[in-house]
Amino acid sequence: MLPYNIDHVAIAVDDIDVAIDGYRTLFNIEVVYREVVVEQGVEEAMLAVGGSFVQLLQPLSADTPVGKFLASRGEGLHHIAFAVPDILAALEHLKELDARLIDESPRIGGRGAKIAFVHPKELAGTLIELVEVADE
Amino acid sequence: MLPYNIDHVAIAVDDIDVAIDGYRTLFNIEVVYREVVVEQGVEEAMLAVGGSFVQLLQPLSADTPVGKFLASRGEGLHHIAFAVPDILAALEHLKELDARLIDESPRIGGRGAKIAFVHPKELAGTLIELVEVADE
Repeated sequence: MLPYNIDHVAIAVDDIDVAIDGYRTLFNIEVVYREVVVEQGVEEAMLAVGGSFVQLLQPLSADTPVGKFLASRGEGLHHIAFAVPDILAALEHLKELDARLIDESPRIGGRGAKIAFVHPKELAGTLIELVEVADE
Repeated sequence: MLPYNIDHVAIAVDDIDVAIDGYRTLFNIEVVYREVVVEQGVEEAMLAVGGSFVQLLQPLSADTPVGKFLASRGEGLHHIAFAVPDILAALEHLKELDARLIDESPRIGGRGAKIAFVHPKELAGTLIELVEVADE
């Protein structure tokens, strides 16, 4: 189950508008879309860079996963997301290997995509998201 | 100066061979090349994912930047690198904006690429590398 792309790199931020302005000013990188994902407790903005995105995440409150991340580590890189063609097949493969998963089955994330997170203890301390992007 | 791609996402690791094996086993992601970059105090491996790379960084010693990162934060996401067509023009633009830079002028990194780092205090706590990839 080879990921075919880095879908996005996510960055936890204190103020999404300040961060968006910074990416625009420094690098001319623009927001493609932006939405509140209540289930994950974040407002997220996707900024296009080539065929991938920088995803900015501002927590909706302090008691969300991203809110707790900010409290303990401060702003910075949060996770990496690999685009896979078939997330169910990818999760099946990971389960056969007894990989530690946060999500045993896919949830619906931003853009209506199917997503699942692999536990950061599984692979070099890195929170990895799998994304099966919905048809456009 | 719009970056045209996410060149790579770098991950600091304790043991590069263990991490390479993990990426291969879990995701079928393979090393494209691997080298020791003495100037940066790392052994690095580049693993291809679509048109980007996961870059694994193992420090050559504890008193290197990546060694100190591991000691204070443990394994995990270290920086993001944007590919730019002209790194001198990108740095000039950033200097005009008084952006905080680690490198005022490009250095030579892995693959013979011209690289420069923007200070993580400049933009949402994220260490950002600019890369002008050498002609193949």
